[in-house]
Amino acid sequence: MTTNAPICITARVRFGDCDPAGIVFTPRYGGFVFEAAETWLEAVMGLSVHQQLNKGEIGTPVRSLTTDLHRSLRPGDRFASTVYVEAIGRTSFRLLVIGRRGDGVLSFVGRMTCVTTDPSHRSAMPLSEMYQQRLTQYQADCGDIPAIA
Amino acid sequence: MTTNAPICITARVRFGDCDPAGIVFTPRYGGFVFEAAETWLEAVMGLSVHQQLNKGEIGTPVRSLTTDLHRSLRPGDRFASTVYVEAIGRTSFRLLVIGRRGDGVLSFVGRMTCVTTDPSHRSAMPLSEMYQQRLTQYQADCGDIPAIA
Amino acid sequence: MTTNAPICITARVRFGDCDPAGIVFTPRYGGFVFEAAETWLEAVMGLSVHQQLNKGEIGTPVRSLTTDLHRSLRPGDRFASTVYVEAIGRTSFRLLVIGRRGDGVLSFVGRMTCVTTDPSHRSAMPLSEMYQQRLTQYQADCGDIPAIA
Amino acid sequence: MTTNAPICITARVRFGDCDPAGIVFTPRYGGFVFEAAETWLEAVMGLSVHQQLNKGEIGTPVRSLTTDLHRSLRPGDRFASTVYVEAIGRTSFRLLVIGRRGDGVLSFVGRMTCVTTDPSHRSAMPLSEMYQQRLTQYQADCGDIPAIA
Repeated sequence: MTTNAPICITARVRFGDCDPAGIVFTPRYGGFVFEAAETWLEAVMGLSVHQQLNKGEIGTPVRSLTTDLHRSLRPGDRFASTVYVEAIGRTSFRLLVIGRRGDGVLSFVGRMTCVTTDPSHRSAMPLSEMYQQRLTQYQADCGDIPAIA
Repeated sequence: MTTNAPICITARVRFGDCDPAGIVFTPRYGGFVFEAAETWLEAVMGLSVHQQLNKGEIGTPVRSLTTDLHRSLRPGDRFASTVYVEAIGRTSFRLLVIGRRGDGVLSFVGRMTCVTTDPSHRSAMPLSEMYQQRLTQYQADCGDIPAIA
Repeated sequence: MTTNAPICITARVRFGDCDPAGIVFTPRYGGFVFEAAETWLEAVMGLSVHQQLNKGEIGTPVRSLTTDLHRSLRPGDRFASTVYVEAIGRTSFRLLVIGRRGDGVLSFVGRMTCVTTDPSHRSAMPLSEMYQQRLTQYQADCGDIPAIA
Repeated sequence: MTTNAPICITARVRFGDCDPAGIVFTPRYGGFVFEAAETWLEAVMGLSVHQQLNKGEIGTPVRSLTTDLHRSLRPGDRFASTVYVEAIGRTSFRLLVIGRRGDGVLSFVGRMTCVTTDPSHRSAMPLSEMYQQRLTQYQADCGDIPAIA
């Protein structure tokens, strides 16, 4: 499987993403990170979260989700979320999602740690060979993770 | 001002909080943390986020929001979010929100770091005396933060 | 089964329910209506949407959801949503949800038409005797629907 | 101003748009309708909801939002929302949003009635000449509204 690494999705901030301060509502950045990861999963692993659930596949539930906010986004702002694999563990891996406003200014940095679970989606299991191989390949394809600033 | 420390809010997971896996959608836990912090702010600081914006008050925008997930919540589950002050810095403070299912099982742990800003809500400023005093008092009122498990 | 008819749920508008105009984001009123209906279903029909899905029960998917807005709600506003059964059809029923601000001012009027489906949740089926009986009883228990104004 | 009438936006259903039934959460369709209207407003009226608020422009708050559901959308489904002007009143206008799945199957039909208000966004006012002209022109550009089925 080939992808254009790193995966980058672009979107536009909608009115409903924002709060009375006129900026994106803080927990919504976590949603932006999840959406980028969703696209990444499909492109790199070849299946969607939905398919994981319905096809008896290995699951990748989230163990932790963090967002560091650098510059607020406002309604209408275009932004790009770029996905890197920051760490590969024994039973988990961590995605790094860097969100930049259309003009390149750093907006948010998200990290999402996913555990691989057996198809019952209950118990953690070591990364399968396919996960190991594709995560490692994706890291290589991305090259160095850019300094965040 | 007196509060019943620690502040604890209870809620029930709604159908719409949950995703096709039948559990709370991951970024929604960040919303639960925000909502607990919102209640805490009003009880301890005596004003709402909304009032901060509209009354020329010191603001407390979020610099980072993290959620660690221990046990998924499902539709109809009751849960309680308890708010602690975990750290008091020079221009920021960090809230710790511990979410437990109705039966006491640990579900999520959130951390939200807020920066205090001048009333223009643009630039960080040192914690005012009132913030320092109330944060410190709240910490004392809460006693030791319970071990998370 | 007895209920305190009409079912009324109270809530408080949260910061994250609101948009940059400082009022509840329009589609969120549909969420308020759904949440009231969710509570009503559990109280009157004795099972949750979640249980419908998992226990092979008759389903009640939504065919239409409408919200008429009379007065905007703002962060911190308390409001009450009261649920009535407005119409009982052959394969569907319509709930009316009247939302009032804490001071009694009319805020929103929602209508949600639900179709009853067989346990596969695919095809509409006539209301079961239990649905007919409970919907009719609830209507009787509620008495006249108050004039909306 | 010229537009490619009718305005049509395409999107893909995300995991987080969906509920435990594995389909888009009902109130979320209202969000899809709002998002289509948001794009329409900017393309046809030349300004965003956000700019209405901040630039002392005529406002177009929503008086009612309805969604009729024909076929559920699922995670990953592509869909297109096409926006028509269904009615032009004295102080309001009504948008019709037709949502079709990627394969053309009708999914949802939304209607959103907007009131024009003076720049204080408080009181309804007759449609300005610009609104009348552009709404009428858009209707003409769209031609007949297709039969919904």
